[in-house]
Amino acid sequence: MLLTTLYIIGITAEAMTGALAAGKRHMDWFGVMLVASATAIGGGTVRDILLGHYPLGWVAHPQYLVITCLAGLFTTIVAPWVVRFHKLFVLLDSLGLIVFSIIGCRVAMDMGLSPLICIVAAVVTGVFGGLLRDLITRRPPMVLHKELYASVAFIAGAMYFGLLYLGIDETIVTISTLVTGFVIRVAAVQFGWHLPVFHFEELDNEANAKASTKNSAESQG
Amino acid sequence: MLLTTLYIIGITAEAMTGALAAGKRHMDWFGVMLVASATAIGGGTVRDILLGHYPLGWVAHPQYLVITCLAGLFTTIVAPWVVRFHKLFVLLDSLGLIVFSIIGCRVAMDMGLSPLICIVAAVVTGVFGGLLRDLITRRPPMVLHKELYASVAFIAGAMYFGLLYLGIDETIVTISTLVTGFVIRVAAVQFGWHLPVFHFEELDNEANAKASTKNSAESQG
Amino acid sequence: MLLTTLYIIGITAEAMTGALAAGKRHMDWFGVMLVASATAIGGGTVRDILLGHYPLGWVAHPQYLVITCLAGLFTTIVAPWVVRFHKLFVLLDSLGLIVFSIIGCRVAMDMGLSPLICIVAAVVTGVFGGLLRDLITRRPPMVLHKELYASVAFIAGAMYFGLLYLGIDETIVTISTLVTGFVIRVAAVQFGWHLPVFHFEELDNEANAKASTKNSAESQG
Repeated sequence: MLLTTLYIIGITAEAMTGALAAGKRHMDWFGVMLVASATAIGGGTVRDILLGHYPLGWVAHPQYLVITCLAGLFTTIVAPWVVRFHKLFVLLDSLGLIVFSIIGCRVAMDMGLSPLICIVAAVVTGVFGGLLRDLITRRPPMVLHKELYASVAFIAGAMYFGLLYLGIDETIVTISTLVTGFVIRVAAVQFGWHLPVFHFEELDNEANAKASTKNSAESQG
Repeated sequence: MLLTTLYIIGITAEAMTGALAAGKRHMDWFGVMLVASATAIGGGTVRDILLGHYPLGWVAHPQYLVITCLAGLFTTIVAPWVVRFHKLFVLLDSLGLIVFSIIGCRVAMDMGLSPLICIVAAVVTGVFGGLLRDLITRRPPMVLHKELYASVAFIAGAMYFGLLYLGIDETIVTISTLVTGFVIRVAAVQFGWHLPVFHFEELDNEANAKASTKNSAESQG
Repeated sequence: MLLTTLYIIGITAEAMTGALAAGKRHMDWFGVMLVASATAIGGGTVRDILLGHYPLGWVAHPQYLVITCLAGLFTTIVAPWVVRFHKLFVLLDSLGLIVFSIIGCRVAMDMGLSPLICIVAAVVTGVFGGLLRDLITRRPPMVLHKELYASVAFIAGAMYFGLLYLGIDETIVTISTLVTGFVIRVAAVQFGWHLPVFHFEELDNEANAKASTKNSAESQG
């Protein structure tokens, strides 16, 4: 199956980014495996818990957990070389994002949930792995600050749902969504596209609070 | 229904406080919607996951999620004016706290759970939205430090459960709990009531660890 | 029952370590009870949510929640004396770790899950309480950095599962696992055993990123 193959590539790449984040925090091997797994399969786990979709994917298929743990440990050896393939990682990460979004949408559709929840399931699956990684390693969550990441998951979910709804063949829908989502994501990274950012400042003295907000489209410094 | 109307007012107000917190961290629109939604419906989500109460409220009624996302985005426009209505927000937030607590207690009662768990469900529903907001935006969790917040949720839950247990009419119980909880909460904010705080210090050198503790009732600086 | 008695000792000791962490962050009594309970019963809660094992332990048996809340409040009074019994705490914490791991493994086995997931359930039960404590109190998560903690849970889970699989009497298996795990854990603390640590550094300028990694076996400074 195409999706399964791409899914395994996706969780491997995501696990490696998680392991690098763990290494920046000087975690031990267990920490590396935990952050790698949370990054790679945390999005699907959160989605399944929110939807009450049991058993969780990695509980039913423990081999995925083995893959993410091994990918994490492997990263501790090859880390010096990994950074040289930074661009390859961005590509694999983009691929993983779309694959996760499609699978998330699929799961919610198979449960007969409403269109909006199917798209939310796509976004949760695509985004929450990186969010968990950044929470555990105490970094500002990247997906909430920069680049079209959640938006691409949203577009991929909506496109997959919409095309299937129109009765188009599933293989065609899957490949179209993969290609479209991938191109948008890579273009977003390349050209620095991102959502407007909300700035809000408040003086320390709450009684005299003032606010200044702007929705800027320029890059964050 | 009174409770449904108040619930919608409550999640709107909570979503706006979440959006302001996201703005202080310069999050993008997706981050704003995520933090707004987590703040407004995160408490009910955590409660339902802990109790195994599926489907979650917003999965069954996606319109609540639409409301919190729109309220979050709306806040990015009106933020400069929002701070002028700080007192109105405190009132709406207090109302939301009691409404959330009543609904949380109700859900656990409908599941036939024990009295203590019904009250815990009230507290979790009332408190965990703000706790999630503070975790995601990396602030010290306010509900764990100051003011009678969790305590008011506890009182509201206990009162609602107790009065219903005594066989009093549900509408009377709901209104009594709303009024009582609201008054206690507003009084707590007004007069700076809060729970005693636990201070514990330990020297860096663990071998020579010393501790000094005090349970102070004065305000935190 | 032996396991139940040891479990109550374990959650009491864990709740007290949680309360001390809350005190270092100057939390109020509610914060103390929350962190105490999350530390003591958070591991089992996360395990049950991941496995879809409902109702949660403390929902079915609210008395455990009462114990952890009381232990937390009690700690605010006796904290100055608690630090003098630091070594006793390490022993009780070690005992709790093994008991939690055995119970976690047992739950997954009773659900008929695969061997790997049973061992993962042991690790999650043993480790996630401390992880939640450190996330809520905003400390670097200890279990991801130092000492054989998750590893001991892994060994205990694997030993318990393996010996039962070989058809050995359950009481013998439980006691053997308790003794073995306890000895390994105490030895790990005494002699400073820990897993290799993964160091990864990246220059700020991503274009010129360089990495240096080492897997060191010496103590972290």
